[in-house]
Amino acid sequence: MQKPKYHIFVCTSSRPNGQQKGFCLSNDGVEILMKFVEEIEDRELEGEVFVTNTGCFGVCEQGPIVVVYPDNVWYGSVTPDDVEEIMDEHIEGGNPVSRLEI
Amino acid sequence: MQKPKYHIFVCTSSRPNGQQKGFCLSNDGVEILMKFVEEIEDRELEGEVFVTNTGCFGVCEQGPIVVVYPDNVWYGSVTPDDVEEIMDEHIEGGNPVSRLEI
Repeated sequence: MQKPKYHIFVCTSSRPNGQQKGFCLSNDGVEILMKFVEEIEDRELEGEVFVTNTGCFGVCEQGPIVVVYPDNVWYGSVTPDDVEEIMDEHIEGGNPVSRLEI
Repeated sequence: MQKPKYHIFVCTSSRPNGQQKGFCLSNDGVEILMKFVEEIEDRELEGEVFVTNTGCFGVCEQGPIVVVYPDNVWYGSVTPDDVEEIMDEHIEGGNPVSRLEI
């Protein structure tokens, strides 16, 4: 199979309201995921950049969480508006967005 | 934050019965996930080996799927019985289990 150059993982974990865990889903996790899907399609990077939703990464208090491999770069407090910058700077530019790193 | 040396991703995607997608959940995806959690605890590797469940990787026909980063190694047709071998050979030994690679 064709393997990705970059693989973006977006937490979309959910828990009942009022619990700390489940923070990512209730803070636009799915919107962040779909924004990555859209940006990857727009830039015609489908073959080399994969995006996958995940369960809890265990660092909910720093969510929403996005992790980029193979770089092992962890982003926290990500908003849908940050997706374009991550795509420009990190995925296409090769430089992680340091202001979002945790 | 402390980053993992290895991060194991296990597909636990689900879909309605009778559809090809959703193969991983109905073929022991959660059991595979829990076996990794157990093996990591038994070997006291919690700080350096992370395991996370995911949504669909898009290669359902080769599932259940397990992906290990930063190595970008993709395993298919994984069973709960394969988990110990992946832990021994790949995670602790540094050599991917070639018979399971896709």
